[in-house]
Amino acid sequence: MFTPDDQRHMARALELAARGLYTTTPNPRVGCVIVNGAKVVGEGWHEKAGAAHAEPIALQAAGAKAAGATVYVTLEPCAHFGRTPPCVDALLAAKPARVVAAMADPNPQTAGEGFARLRAAGIAVDVGLMAAEAHALNIGFVSRMTRGTPWVRMKVAASLDGRTALAGGQSQWITGAGARRDGHAWRARACAVLTGVGTVKEDNPQLTVRDVATTRQPLRVVVDSRLQTPLDARVLGPGTIIAAAGVDAPRSVALRAHGAEVVVLPNHEGKVELPALLQELARRGCNEVHVEAGHKLNGSLLEEGLVDELLIYLAPCILGDTAQGMFHLPPLANLQERRNLRITDITRVGDDVRILARPG
Amino acid sequence: MFTPDDQRHMARALELAARGLYTTTPNPRVGCVIVNGAKVVGEGWHEKAGAAHAEPIALQAAGAKAAGATVYVTLEPCAHFGRTPPCVDALLAAKPARVVAAMADPNPQTAGEGFARLRAAGIAVDVGLMAAEAHALNIGFVSRMTRGTPWVRMKVAASLDGRTALAGGQSQWITGAGARRDGHAWRARACAVLTGVGTVKEDNPQLTVRDVATTRQPLRVVVDSRLQTPLDARVLGPGTIIAAAGVDAPRSVALRAHGAEVVVLPNHEGKVELPALLQELARRGCNEVHVEAGHKLNGSLLEEGLVDELLIYLAPCILGDTAQGMFHLPPLANLQERRNLRITDITRVGDDVRILARPG
Repeated sequence: MFTPDDQRHMARALELAARGLYTTTPNPRVGCVIVNGAKVVGEGWHEKAGAAHAEPIALQAAGAKAAGATVYVTLEPCAHFGRTPPCVDALLAAKPARVVAAMADPNPQTAGEGFARLRAAGIAVDVGLMAAEAHALNIGFVSRMTRGTPWVRMKVAASLDGRTALAGGQSQWITGAGARRDGHAWRARACAVLTGVGTVKEDNPQLTVRDVATTRQPLRVVVDSRLQTPLDARVLGPGTIIAAAGVDAPRSVALRAHGAEVVVLPNHEGKVELPALLQELARRGCNEVHVEAGHKLNGSLLEEGLVDELLIYLAPCILGDTAQGMFHLPPLANLQERRNLRITDITRVGDDVRILARPG
Repeated sequence: MFTPDDQRHMARALELAARGLYTTTPNPRVGCVIVNGAKVVGEGWHEKAGAAHAEPIALQAAGAKAAGATVYVTLEPCAHFGRTPPCVDALLAAKPARVVAAMADPNPQTAGEGFARLRAAGIAVDVGLMAAEAHALNIGFVSRMTRGTPWVRMKVAASLDGRTALAGGQSQWITGAGARRDGHAWRARACAVLTGVGTVKEDNPQLTVRDVATTRQPLRVVVDSRLQTPLDARVLGPGTIIAAAGVDAPRSVALRAHGAEVVVLPNHEGKVELPALLQELARRGCNEVHVEAGHKLNGSLLEEGLVDELLIYLAPCILGDTAQGMFHLPPLANLQERRNLRITDITRVGDDVRILARPG
């Protein structure tokens, strides 16, 4: 069904889509290439919510040459009115001969509607070319559309013996500059950076993206059951959410006065209900949540089955077994109880090693 | 100085040398290729101590064709009488035109003597082709010759969060069958497999090479300061050394009756003097020592600066921070005190990741 030329053009469309990696949220990253004969007559990519979608941009570039052409698009063209008109209408008006899409709209309630309208107009529609790559690019959007929760990626920076901080808390810096920059690139594509109040008190992080260029900062979210975030914490400011387990009016007022929003999501143990927090973030349009926390919150998220991906940087050093571990978890009675993972990627980043893994 | 043909023949000589990986100890692994014109006229490799060296085997195969030929050898030909006559004498008798050696004899007291005698006889001698590969092949032999101690390689099998056993001690098996087989290949090339009495009591290991074919078993060495090795431990038998810190005649007699040798090497803290143990092993001809121990002995060896290489297998699973760590070390006051490593290799072995690292 797909030719090497199809592959090449879709690869280009994915490359264009990836330009929106840091900016499209809550929208998906989408790229579009229009080819008439052997010639590329239009290209487009979606930059950010409210701005034009990839298809209209490419169609405008192609002009009359879109008629009879093949349109490569990384995601099913939208068939509904959002902040912009439906892309399907623009395609129908341009009369291409064929539309090749990497994947269908992940929203099960609307998936296929775009394709159906194109096919009804006599346009050939082929779906599934480089679907894995397209899915990976929008893994958070797919997660939010299909599960109602963001894709949760947990970053851990540790020594080769799995230690994330000294017993006294010092952790800056275990990994090298290259790994930290790489970590900021992962932050930049996330919609929210999540941490715990322990890390706020210990490291006083800003949780902003600094080491890579971006026009958008993710939300900053602090799990802080008892509202212990210091009022001079660098994380406070507009775009910061403090997730608490109980109401403490004076503390809440003070934190709000420092720019933060306080949301109260208690569970039956008097802590923050983590699944509810993730659902709340999804409700606000968060596709990918980037966790940078200490071993306690890391352990809680793992134990509740809320982690979709681990992003582990291992530095070439040893800290020894009095230093802090990665994940605070209850003791296992036997090895069969271990949490299995599937390693999806191993890359050297500077002197460090980056391992991507998912619950297996 | 070296041509692509030289490279090719030396690569072959190294390949031949590697056939002796499990058997030559205490001798080095050596390979030899003799080329006359464009034709390989003889090949040889050293199999084990007492058997012929690589050069005489290759010379015998070459016969009269060795005259005027080029001899490729991975190590400087010996110039002294050992269990066999000097290889230099055999070379001088065969009258090759040129000898290409990867590296000099690592023993500083005799290095260069073989080359000098060849050159004195008018034979061209070129040294240093693929020296790094040749050095790596005999890293333990070089260590013993130049430092008087074996090359100490410490194997650690851990979860991705750096845990080697559950709190209760269970560790079989964290890594998969492929990693365990790979570990046995590293055992097989070692002259001794070293562990602590804690591991003997916990896991009751045999410490033998089983998963790969070999005609030689390494020595088994147990660091057991207070002679607590159970008399029914599977590690006991001929070829086992129990290193103790004090004399306990009845225990020693009992352990000897079970086939083990007891050596007493106390330090001032009433434990085994680990540097002295390594020197003793070198004195017995141990080139490479393979450590498979628990976090306590691992930590002691590291702390005393006795570890030359780490062989770490990380399994795709999480055990959590109540499980045992890799290295029991004193707490660090700050991150500058960390032990830095240099990662030399990362390879996937089955579902696991193998990382080789050296103190940096």
